[in-house]
Amino acid sequence: MIQAQSVGIVAPQRADFAEPLKLRSGGQLDNYHLVFETYGTLNAERSNAVLVCHALSGSHHLAGHYATDPHDIGWWDNLIGPGKPLDTRKFFVIGVNNLGGCYGSSGPNQTNPATGRLWGADFPFVTVEDWVESQARLADHLGIERFAAVVGGSLGGMQALSWSLQFPERVGHVAVIAAAPKLTAQNIAFNEVARQAILSDPEFHGGHYYEHGVVPARGLKLARMVGHITYLSDDAMAEKFGRSLRHGRNTYSYDVEFEIESYLRYQGDKFAGYFDANTYLLTTKALDYFDPAFEYGGSLPAALARASADFLVVSFTTDWRFAPERSREIVYGLLHNKRNVSYAEIDCPAGHDSFLLDDTRYHALLSAWFDRIEV
Amino acid sequence: MIQAQSVGIVAPQRADFAEPLKLRSGGQLDNYHLVFETYGTLNAERSNAVLVCHALSGSHHLAGHYATDPHDIGWWDNLIGPGKPLDTRKFFVIGVNNLGGCYGSSGPNQTNPATGRLWGADFPFVTVEDWVESQARLADHLGIERFAAVVGGSLGGMQALSWSLQFPERVGHVAVIAAAPKLTAQNIAFNEVARQAILSDPEFHGGHYYEHGVVPARGLKLARMVGHITYLSDDAMAEKFGRSLRHGRNTYSYDVEFEIESYLRYQGDKFAGYFDANTYLLTTKALDYFDPAFEYGGSLPAALARASADFLVVSFTTDWRFAPERSREIVYGLLHNKRNVSYAEIDCPAGHDSFLLDDTRYHALLSAWFDRIEV
Repeated sequence: MIQAQSVGIVAPQRADFAEPLKLRSGGQLDNYHLVFETYGTLNAERSNAVLVCHALSGSHHLAGHYATDPHDIGWWDNLIGPGKPLDTRKFFVIGVNNLGGCYGSSGPNQTNPATGRLWGADFPFVTVEDWVESQARLADHLGIERFAAVVGGSLGGMQALSWSLQFPERVGHVAVIAAAPKLTAQNIAFNEVARQAILSDPEFHGGHYYEHGVVPARGLKLARMVGHITYLSDDAMAEKFGRSLRHGRNTYSYDVEFEIESYLRYQGDKFAGYFDANTYLLTTKALDYFDPAFEYGGSLPAALARASADFLVVSFTTDWRFAPERSREIVYGLLHNKRNVSYAEIDCPAGHDSFLLDDTRYHALLSAWFDRIEV
Repeated sequence: MIQAQSVGIVAPQRADFAEPLKLRSGGQLDNYHLVFETYGTLNAERSNAVLVCHALSGSHHLAGHYATDPHDIGWWDNLIGPGKPLDTRKFFVIGVNNLGGCYGSSGPNQTNPATGRLWGADFPFVTVEDWVESQARLADHLGIERFAAVVGGSLGGMQALSWSLQFPERVGHVAVIAAAPKLTAQNIAFNEVARQAILSDPEFHGGHYYEHGVVPARGLKLARMVGHITYLSDDAMAEKFGRSLRHGRNTYSYDVEFEIESYLRYQGDKFAGYFDANTYLLTTKALDYFDPAFEYGGSLPAALARASADFLVVSFTTDWRFAPERSREIVYGLLHNKRNVSYAEIDCPAGHDSFLLDDTRYHALLSAWFDRIEV
C-alpha cells in the first residue's frame, strides 16, 4: 500500500446541454450547463467511473486543490486520491455541481439564457430525480454507459439511491451514506425554519437580491446556524464546547459568552459570505420532496424492487439528523427484494458530519468495499 | 372525589417593592413590581401556599379565566382547581410573572421609573436566582413564611430547584418537572439561534423598537419556530404531521406544502403577535446562565447539599430538550445527599411539551404527591 496522496492540482470543466430537460415540477430547462471535475483516468473499457454526489452545501470540487488557491481543497479530499479509499489509480472519479447549485452549474446565480439576466428566484424547482437525470446526461457526454459506482452522503446518498432506481442498468454499485429514504416532519421543520429565515430577510427581495447589490446574509446565517446544530451530535457539541465561557464568567451581554455561540456565529457568517441563498432554498426543497416510496403507496420495498446494484449502506450511531434507523429502512427494503447489501453502523461521535470525516473504521470499510469492485 | 372544576373567574394582582433588588449581573432594580394571581384560600396557619413558577413563554395566569375574556384560560388550568391534582380546596396557589417578563411585572415593556420611558433593552439581565429572590419577597408581602411546595416545569423547574437551594428553610416540597440542572451546548445553541434571529431583525432597533412603533416580528417568529421543534418529539411530529401535504401533492413553491410548515408558521406568527422580543432574549439568557453546580466546581451533589425539601422529579421519555438523563442527574445529586426524592419517568409521546398536558399517569402522580403533603 502506497502512502495516500493528494490528486494535486485540479481544474473544473464545463459541459453544455442543448436538449431540453423536463423537470419533475412540470417545468423545463431548455438548455443548461454542468460544471464538474474528474480525478484519475477513464480506462479503455470505460468501466471504472465513479460518480460522487454532493450534499446541501457541497460542490463538484471533491479532491485536490486549484492552482490559484492551494487552500481551496475538495470537500472529500480525505477519501479520494492515489492510495486513498476511493483510489484514483483504479477509478475515474467525477464530481458534478448540481443543477440549481451555486458553484457554476446552471442555477440562480447564473445567467438565464432567455432573459440575459441572472435567474435568481426564477430558476425552476429541481428534485433529486432531476439531478440524477442531468448527471446521466453528463455520463453520456463523457461516454460512460455504466458507472462502476455511484456514491454519496446525506443528500448525496439520496441521489445515489435514486440512481439505482432511475437507471438500474447504468450503475453497478451504490453507496448510500448517512442518508434517509425520505425526510421526517422534524427534518422538514428544520428546513422550513431555514427557509423562513431567508425568505423573511428584507434583503431577499423576492429572490432577486443580486439586482439590488445585496445578499440576504442575515437569513442565510441563521439557516446555517440551525443546520449546524443538526449536523453535530449533542455529545460532540458537549465534548467540543460544553459550557465553556469565553471570558471564564458570565458577562451579561448579547456578545459571545459561551464558545458554542462563537462557533455558530462564525460558521453562519462564513457560509453567508460564499453560499447562495436561492440555492439553499432550492436544495432544502429537493430534500423535502425526496420520497421514492411515494409513488408506491408509501412502500419502500416496492419502490426498491427496481434496484439491481450491489449496495453499501452506512450510518453513524450519533447522527440524529438521519439516524441509523433511517438507513435500516433502506437496508430492509433492499433485503426484501433479495438485493446484495452490506450495512455498517459506525460508532463515530461526530453526528451527521461523520460522513465527511476520516474515522478509521469508516474509511477502512469504504476501502474494502471499493477494493472489491471489479472494473 | 368531586368532579374537577375550574377556579372560574380570576384577576391579576400587583405588588410594588421599594427595597432595591441586587441582581446576579451586578446590576440593581431600585424598585419594581410583580404581577401575580392566587387561587384558593391561604389558611390561618399560612401553611398551604404553593408557588408555581413559569417557563419561557408562561405567565402568572395559571388557571381560570378573566371576566373580560372567557377564552384566556390559564396555562396550567388542567392541573390547578377544585378537585384537580393541585387542588385549590386544599392549597393556596400562586403564579407570578417573572421579572423581565412581558405580562405586567417590571420588564422591558414596562416604564423605567428612572426615565419615564419603557425599559426596552435597558432592562437588566435577570437570572433564575434573581427571580427566586423576588418571589421570596412576594411571599413576605403575602405573609407566607414557608411554602408547602414550589413547583415548576422546564425553566419553572429550574426555579423550583433553585428555591430549594436559596431558601431551603422556606420550602417543604419541591417538584422539578421536565427540567435540567443546566443547559447543554446544544440547548444553548438553539437559544443562540433564537437570539440571533431577534437581534438581527432590522426592526429590533437595538431593543428600543417600541419607540419606533414596530416589533421584530420576523425574528420572534423564527425564534418560536425553532423553539417549537425542540418542544415536540420527533415521533409526536411524525404522528401529528408526518409528510402530509396540504394539497395532496408537491406544488413546487415556498407557500405551505407540508402541514408541519403550516403549523410552525402559525405558531410563530401567533407568538410574535403577543410576546415581547426583549423578554424572549432575557429569558433565554436566564436559561443559559442557570448552573447551580458552577460555584461548586461543577459538582451538582455538592450544590444540592443545601437542599432540605422533599423532592419530586419528573421527566418524559420523549423529551429531547431536557431528556430523562438530565433529570436523573438531579435525582442522583439528591440521593447522594440522602434527600427524600421520588422520581418518575413518564412514557408520554409529546416530548418536552408533555409537562403541560394532562397525561393520565402524570396527573395521577402529581395528585398523589400533592395529596401526601400535610398542610
